[in-house]
Amino acid sequence: MKAEQVLHMNSGDDDKSYAQNSTIQNVRLSMTRSVRQSAIMEAYKSTSFPKTMSIGDLGCSLGPNTLLVASDAIDAVEIVHKELNQPLPEIHIQLNDLPGNDFNGLINSLEGFKKTHRCFISVVPGSFYGRLFPSHSLHFIHSSSSLNWLSQVPLDLQNEENVKINRGKLCISKTSPPCVLEAYSKQFQRDFSLFLKCRGEELVPGGCMVLTLLSRSTSENSDPSSLGIGLQWEILAQALVDMASEGIVDEKKIDLCNAPFYVPSLEEMKHAIETEGSFSIKSIESFDVTYNGTKVEDTVTTALKLSINAQQMAKMIRAVTESILVSHFGEEIIDELFVRYSYLLEDYYSKNMHGCTTAVVFMKRNVP
Amino acid sequence: MKAEQVLHMNSGDDDKSYAQNSTIQNVRLSMTRSVRQSAIMEAYKSTSFPKTMSIGDLGCSLGPNTLLVASDAIDAVEIVHKELNQPLPEIHIQLNDLPGNDFNGLINSLEGFKKTHRCFISVVPGSFYGRLFPSHSLHFIHSSSSLNWLSQVPLDLQNEENVKINRGKLCISKTSPPCVLEAYSKQFQRDFSLFLKCRGEELVPGGCMVLTLLSRSTSENSDPSSLGIGLQWEILAQALVDMASEGIVDEKKIDLCNAPFYVPSLEEMKHAIETEGSFSIKSIESFDVTYNGTKVEDTVTTALKLSINAQQMAKMIRAVTESILVSHFGEEIIDELFVRYSYLLEDYYSKNMHGCTTAVVFMKRNVP
Repeated sequence: MKAEQVLHMNSGDDDKSYAQNSTIQNVRLSMTRSVRQSAIMEAYKSTSFPKTMSIGDLGCSLGPNTLLVASDAIDAVEIVHKELNQPLPEIHIQLNDLPGNDFNGLINSLEGFKKTHRCFISVVPGSFYGRLFPSHSLHFIHSSSSLNWLSQVPLDLQNEENVKINRGKLCISKTSPPCVLEAYSKQFQRDFSLFLKCRGEELVPGGCMVLTLLSRSTSENSDPSSLGIGLQWEILAQALVDMASEGIVDEKKIDLCNAPFYVPSLEEMKHAIETEGSFSIKSIESFDVTYNGTKVEDTVTTALKLSINAQQMAKMIRAVTESILVSHFGEEIIDELFVRYSYLLEDYYSKNMHGCTTAVVFMKRNVP
Repeated sequence: MKAEQVLHMNSGDDDKSYAQNSTIQNVRLSMTRSVRQSAIMEAYKSTSFPKTMSIGDLGCSLGPNTLLVASDAIDAVEIVHKELNQPLPEIHIQLNDLPGNDFNGLINSLEGFKKTHRCFISVVPGSFYGRLFPSHSLHFIHSSSSLNWLSQVPLDLQNEENVKINRGKLCISKTSPPCVLEAYSKQFQRDFSLFLKCRGEELVPGGCMVLTLLSRSTSENSDPSSLGIGLQWEILAQALVDMASEGIVDEKKIDLCNAPFYVPSLEEMKHAIETEGSFSIKSIESFDVTYNGTKVEDTVTTALKLSINAQQMAKMIRAVTESILVSHFGEEIIDELFVRYSYLLEDYYSKNMHGCTTAVVFMKRNVP
């Protein structure tokens, strides 16, 4: 099954919604604002100051973060317009997400934005692991916190014979055999290359792209489960295994469930971009967001502290993973699962520091 | 209040939904298919065979009719491609409706379509009485069964002193004083001119537009309430007045309610198009759809018979008008209102023939 058939962030605006639980994603957007603005300016200049500047934001979801890229784009273009005395272009923002996203909610939020921001906005539903826009129709593409989601669970792990390979786990785990990591890594390479190919076709030559996604820090390279989101899947699996031992969850269902989620290293991304060939890397770096005020030393740029407790973290993880978990385990276990998850996380936090590394890649479409 | 804040066709897929009750709109689309196809072919040729053919469908709503224009466009372009041996362009369909439309439902229906039709589809929420698309970004624009909705109730009828001018009526009625017709007619001229101006800016020079809307037939020119949709508002008002006499509805609310709906004559449309100046009329004609198998003799083209009973008609009118009626009278009276409406309509049908005139205008963007 393809991820696009089930995956979506939690809809609405209540306390379980993604809109109310996307602080980490917001921090990621704030931290990458200057790279994004530089890239938009570069795109505007190197595509010869188009009359309409078309911008695609892929995996836009719904909430306070959704229109940040749009305002950044408007600001960036305005700076260039003033600096170089160029006529102000029209700005066309195109917001993409999977068909299961809450587009009614998104569309309701646009009216207020359009009153205070001079731009055209359209909505493009579909998987970004395929073409979304006409050829050479965009000048800048952005995607944040989305590309860790794979198009599907690696085929090797869907195989009936192989389901037990990753027994009692939901993703790559410390105890997963190497073939699990290999299957995930291959799927990422396939998906990411396809993503690059499609975006290369959609961008005007000289157009730019900025991607922000969870990545592994250098020390994690050999152990992709040790920190960051890998840990969240690990603790979720633990909560499920506990529930299975009490007969609340069918153990076989845990064996059959693997999340279509992968956290690549910077090297894997670089390799894929260079091999695919549509883009040149202008910059690639990573930064750490650390929770509970602890500082992770292993960073490229400065670590950002984010005060967040286990309950808040549990809500965030629920807002992001619930659609996938419901499709495997049904709705009835979710409340219980996240109560247990929250306790396990609190226990973990009391003993460990915890952080999340984010990569930001700025690249430019090669002129063929 | 602007119509865009409340107006939408009934959402969902149940027996009260627009999707299940849009047969008349479907007939209108079938009857205008050949004009639409000619216009798409003309647009494709006269904009010098663009690599991407961009098409806007304004007031797309949701249901079996929503993607008919997209398939027509794909077919028409394919015909020209074969005839003139031109490379097949990419086709970009942009579906517009007011923000209250059921976009989640619409977006769910797109996935199946995209599997069998080679095109890009995006969704553009907003009022077409304003700019929706970047300048010169479309090659063909279409709108069917939408332009009878005005941007607002004519201001003269919103005036506190004037609310009693159209007492006990919901729209232009046989008993409305001439100033009511005048106020509606002026609002239509203002709205339609603004629509033309915006579309003129969005279309590439040489691009084409086809508009289909309810119109008055020649004999109705002096009496815009006599047939067609005017009659539906008349009977709806009658049902409400009956309910007011029984104390179920507040009579004052009926006086305060006027629908933002107008049925122009062909002459009014021609005049507005010529005065605004962005477009040249390639063809303008009207045809009648008659219900209950009766034949309306006064037609430009042949009348089309449509077998439909009072109950079906009541469902259609409900699917289209419910959002406006709820905003004035509240949800609680709607079921009762349409039971009464259905009886009144049945009585009317037993004594009268009934029909609806539709105009179809094919125009071309002037080269400035």
